[in-house]
Amino acid sequence: MHVAILGATGAVGRTFLEVLEQRNFPVAELTLLASERSVGKVIEWRGRKITVRAPEPGCFRGVDVALFSAGGARSLEWAPRAAEEGAIVVDNSSAWRMDPEVPLVVPEVNPDAAANRPKGIIANPNCSTIQVVVALKALENASPLKNVVMTTFQSVSGAGETGKAALDRELRGETGDTPFSRTIAGNVIPQIGKFDGEGWTEEELKMVYEPRKILSLPKLDLAPTCVRVPVEIGHSVEMMVEQERPLSRDEAIEALSAMPGIVVSAAAEKFPTPLEVAGRDEVFVGRIRRDIHRPNVLHLWVVADNLRKGAATNAVQIAGLLG
Amino acid sequence: MHVAILGATGAVGRTFLEVLEQRNFPVAELTLLASERSVGKVIEWRGRKITVRAPEPGCFRGVDVALFSAGGARSLEWAPRAAEEGAIVVDNSSAWRMDPEVPLVVPEVNPDAAANRPKGIIANPNCSTIQVVVALKALENASPLKNVVMTTFQSVSGAGETGKAALDRELRGETGDTPFSRTIAGNVIPQIGKFDGEGWTEEELKMVYEPRKILSLPKLDLAPTCVRVPVEIGHSVEMMVEQERPLSRDEAIEALSAMPGIVVSAAAEKFPTPLEVAGRDEVFVGRIRRDIHRPNVLHLWVVADNLRKGAATNAVQIAGLLG
Repeated sequence: MHVAILGATGAVGRTFLEVLEQRNFPVAELTLLASERSVGKVIEWRGRKITVRAPEPGCFRGVDVALFSAGGARSLEWAPRAAEEGAIVVDNSSAWRMDPEVPLVVPEVNPDAAANRPKGIIANPNCSTIQVVVALKALENASPLKNVVMTTFQSVSGAGETGKAALDRELRGETGDTPFSRTIAGNVIPQIGKFDGEGWTEEELKMVYEPRKILSLPKLDLAPTCVRVPVEIGHSVEMMVEQERPLSRDEAIEALSAMPGIVVSAAAEKFPTPLEVAGRDEVFVGRIRRDIHRPNVLHLWVVADNLRKGAATNAVQIAGLLG
Repeated sequence: MHVAILGATGAVGRTFLEVLEQRNFPVAELTLLASERSVGKVIEWRGRKITVRAPEPGCFRGVDVALFSAGGARSLEWAPRAAEEGAIVVDNSSAWRMDPEVPLVVPEVNPDAAANRPKGIIANPNCSTIQVVVALKALENASPLKNVVMTTFQSVSGAGETGKAALDRELRGETGDTPFSRTIAGNVIPQIGKFDGEGWTEEELKMVYEPRKILSLPKLDLAPTCVRVPVEIGHSVEMMVEQERPLSRDEAIEALSAMPGIVVSAAAEKFPTPLEVAGRDEVFVGRIRRDIHRPNVLHLWVVADNLRKGAATNAVQIAGLLG
């Protein structure tokens, strides 16, 4: 396959390169694209030296799959052109996710959706959404979902290389550019994206609308709160899930364990943490427990590497469906 | 007043000294007590030099109020003796909190309870519980509470000086003693206290049973998840509150603002963070918003200094009720 990456020098772009190599993706040719700032950089991949170029008309001709992670504006500009030039675009930005003609795919959950892509574009969901829907699908398989409350602990790499650099700098006691509205070192910030008029953030609204589309549950009641924490890589989500039929703790563990891509920690003290799962491709679930009051409510703690399963790995898995 | 402090050299003990001074508490005499390890240390307070002693029989004679923050075992041993010797004990450990003969007091919420203390002991609630019940009482005043879901982001100082030292050391790349079950620097740990057989932690169970007692709502449905984060001082809690009657966002802001001890950030982008409220005595509430699906459900973000309002300030406020 001829693979192109747009945004090859960003936090997710670099992870695309790692994941393509580690998963032994059948790459015959690799085109690396990025913004002007990175043009001319030479990136070594599997012994090849590849020079980063700027995207230009015609550059997607002959490309089979184009993996995009260069922000919404560049996706809006280049995804339709890439599709027109014959590439299938797997886009990591939020630009196309809610377009009814663009499938939003998590391969463990709705792989069939990838086949129906009238625009030649497939959207990769929001990082927190991906790990959450894998767990929700597993539980939905055992008993229909009624209501989901989620609080996220999201790492700085979710804001790209500038997010990582800002935390590093602050930990060294230095100041400089930051994508965050407050100091993140030694702090937590309950804001990811802009606020709407009702007080909800963009990230929270993504976690309402994207799971509904992926799970084909357009009325699912979801209540997310998204918080940035001073962790480099790995998002954690506390989830409270109300279901039609009560599941015992053992039934919940069984349902989650049956789902491909999930690693379950059944013992309470074996819970996953972001520092431990960074670099891994799976979704890690622990602290599975029944609510104290309501038998049909479960709590769980869900952790994944936001650059891998939350972005690059999921996109490469989607590319793998196209075969 | 003759005030004694047991645990004077710990994280909360030092904060007792700051709070007594800053609030101009009428201290005629001050006795500082701590474990053997700290005996002989000289602490300066308001120009006086006070030598730390070990507690011994008779040392509470003549003491009006004894502020305890030396752990459960020392409280179980010394609180009854101190009471017998005539002191009123305000105890910051969890040892006495659920004793039906010991009032559990947050002065903004249930000040009258402090008067009924058959054992001469008043318990200071868990740090996260205190900030949560102040907000819950404000909302309960406007419409009865039905159901509360909470996720905490708790600072390392909640584990005392050893918690702060462990984070500092890890941030410098060094290893050593830690009260945490995993690395806390650059990580989040969904465990505070031991697990019970159902997968709940001690801290979470405190946040179920203590608010019920303080609010006199013995059947209140509370679902907490407690998480340690790499923040030095200040606990944050995301709360979802279901009430009998729906409150508009404005009504919720009004109810919260009417409560003494609460500082409300009405504008979404003015949310409080722990780094900003450390050193303050109030409970800070922001991100007040109505649930997207359910009109009688509110979300809020509640932050307080766990060493001050979550411990020392609340205890000194209780002492102030005894007058």
